[in-house]
Amino acid sequence: MSAQSPTVDNASALIGFDELVGLLHAVFVKHGTSPQVAATLAHNCASAERDGAHSHGIFRIPGYLSTLASGWVDGQALPVVTDVASGFVRVDAGNGFAQPALAAARDVLVTKARSAGIALLAIHNSHHFAALWPDVEPFAEEGLVALSVVNSMTCVVPHGADRPLFGTNPIAFAAPRADGPPIVFDLATSAIAHGDVQIAARKGERLPPGMGVDSLGQPTTDPRAVLEGGALLPFGGHKGSALSMMVELLAAALTGGHFSFEFNWADHPGARTPWTGQLLIVIDPSKTAGQSFAERSQELVRQMHAVGLRRLPGDRRHRTRAKSLEEGIVVELDALNQLRDWAS
Amino acid sequence: MSAQSPTVDNASALIGFDELVGLLHAVFVKHGTSPQVAATLAHNCASAERDGAHSHGIFRIPGYLSTLASGWVDGQALPVVTDVASGFVRVDAGNGFAQPALAAARDVLVTKARSAGIALLAIHNSHHFAALWPDVEPFAEEGLVALSVVNSMTCVVPHGADRPLFGTNPIAFAAPRADGPPIVFDLATSAIAHGDVQIAARKGERLPPGMGVDSLGQPTTDPRAVLEGGALLPFGGHKGSALSMMVELLAAALTGGHFSFEFNWADHPGARTPWTGQLLIVIDPSKTAGQSFAERSQELVRQMHAVGLRRLPGDRRHRTRAKSLEEGIVVELDALNQLRDWAS
Repeated sequence: MSAQSPTVDNASALIGFDELVGLLHAVFVKHGTSPQVAATLAHNCASAERDGAHSHGIFRIPGYLSTLASGWVDGQALPVVTDVASGFVRVDAGNGFAQPALAAARDVLVTKARSAGIALLAIHNSHHFAALWPDVEPFAEEGLVALSVVNSMTCVVPHGADRPLFGTNPIAFAAPRADGPPIVFDLATSAIAHGDVQIAARKGERLPPGMGVDSLGQPTTDPRAVLEGGALLPFGGHKGSALSMMVELLAAALTGGHFSFEFNWADHPGARTPWTGQLLIVIDPSKTAGQSFAERSQELVRQMHAVGLRRLPGDRRHRTRAKSLEEGIVVELDALNQLRDWAS
Repeated sequence: MSAQSPTVDNASALIGFDELVGLLHAVFVKHGTSPQVAATLAHNCASAERDGAHSHGIFRIPGYLSTLASGWVDGQALPVVTDVASGFVRVDAGNGFAQPALAAARDVLVTKARSAGIALLAIHNSHHFAALWPDVEPFAEEGLVALSVVNSMTCVVPHGADRPLFGTNPIAFAAPRADGPPIVFDLATSAIAHGDVQIAARKGERLPPGMGVDSLGQPTTDPRAVLEGGALLPFGGHKGSALSMMVELLAAALTGGHFSFEFNWADHPGARTPWTGQLLIVIDPSKTAGQSFAERSQELVRQMHAVGLRRLPGDRRHRTRAKSLEEGIVVELDALNQLRDWAS
């Protein structure tokens, strides 16, 4: 990989996707992961950066590295896959990252979904510190429908309660369509994603109202007050709160993982990755009655545009991706130099 | 069934659950359903009334009857169940109601879920005019986790669009717990349920802000303006809108049913029931690693109470149910007399 990258301006540079993957791979291996784990995490993180999903791109690397240094997560963990039933696969991630656990079970999950029509992957003893859409989108690219939920760490006050309990608990969904990239969304069940609060704090920006409370439980628009002893609110009042509760039940109770409030990293200063569980459900839509699913989902997209919708969920990411793959990924020079330091 | 019921006051009477089921059964049969369909719908409708879910109780009967009279739905339909794969069951509801289709496939669905770990039921060519929680709660009562979505009829403007396209598209979820009735929620992905708008209009009440728009697409709190050419908004902005889109894809595209915008009842004056599809996913949590699911979900409930939550989703319904079963269901005398007229 080159030590020099084309500069966009004094503060930014362009880097190719494969080069960024390679650089991140070197960073992860240098900080204690196995090459296999590094490959999965590097591809995941570079994909987020490529798509303009900055809160889950290289912005996350310091958190990964401080967590690895703390001994909180096992960067060398070997996931143990158990074939439980014709539609049910279980993975013990061995206190490692969730993405390598998914990678280890992926083939058997797809085979089961194509055979049984639907299959479930229950990952536990795992750490998920990334965006959730990269976990579901590839299934849709091969014609399957995928849904995933992951719980995280206590930072969201259940609607009607006084104190935080739930994690940001995202729900991601992906479905194929005939004439374009898959329909994909990834939404935190909190009013705002934790990564976006961190970015606002770093930039010195305020949050919109209704996103969070301070350490006294009072509404605040100061991202630092939310991060320092405060908490987030669920999106959409009692409905978002019910969905967040569902995510705890599916991602933790149903996998054998920890709830968002059940782990204690006090003895691991620097630890940032929630030690919980993740659930994936994959469906084979070729089992459906009538016209092909991809034609039908395309028809829904057509009608959504016809009523005036300009942008589908995922559209902005896919446009940024196309630009990144053509012109290179824009990265701050300081961040790029920091990555090169960490890799060497 | 007795022609006299104990009166609560001048306007209300008490009726036992079984007596209400019997009365509703007679009403349905009298208006053209088969006894089997009547049994399913009567139990469903009486259950909603018993639980205080008035917008889906006997309030719905006039809509059922005008729909049956219009010839829009087949009250005698025989659902056709197809065993597609080890985790996938399909039902063609034959232009009948969705609940008898679910009843017809229920045993095979449960058998598949217990064997495969997860199973999917895809109902199409069906009409769903009831609450969704009665479809999922019974699975949790026998130790299973259940999720269901149903699309309905165009009345919700996608976030960022100008005109309505989605239905109210509810999501219902049920999970067992060790020391109490199942955890159950049923939430419209619209900011308010259509039935609640109808009830507000009937009572002459205003809606809270942010629920709907009038026929010109302008925000309104007048339920009649929403019902007469206006539309609802999704709950929670773009996130609720994404979930509503997911419900269209799962309940219609994945079942072979109509999207909420695809049926035209113009030739059937009086028709009220959306002709779409419904998806159910049932999971056997005994396949989970570690402690029993019901113990784990109970622990979540315990912690939700510990952070100050007074009422769980479903709590109010279960309390009303207990009172109704002990003392009888409170029904307006006028409504009860109307039901007796319709039954005779």
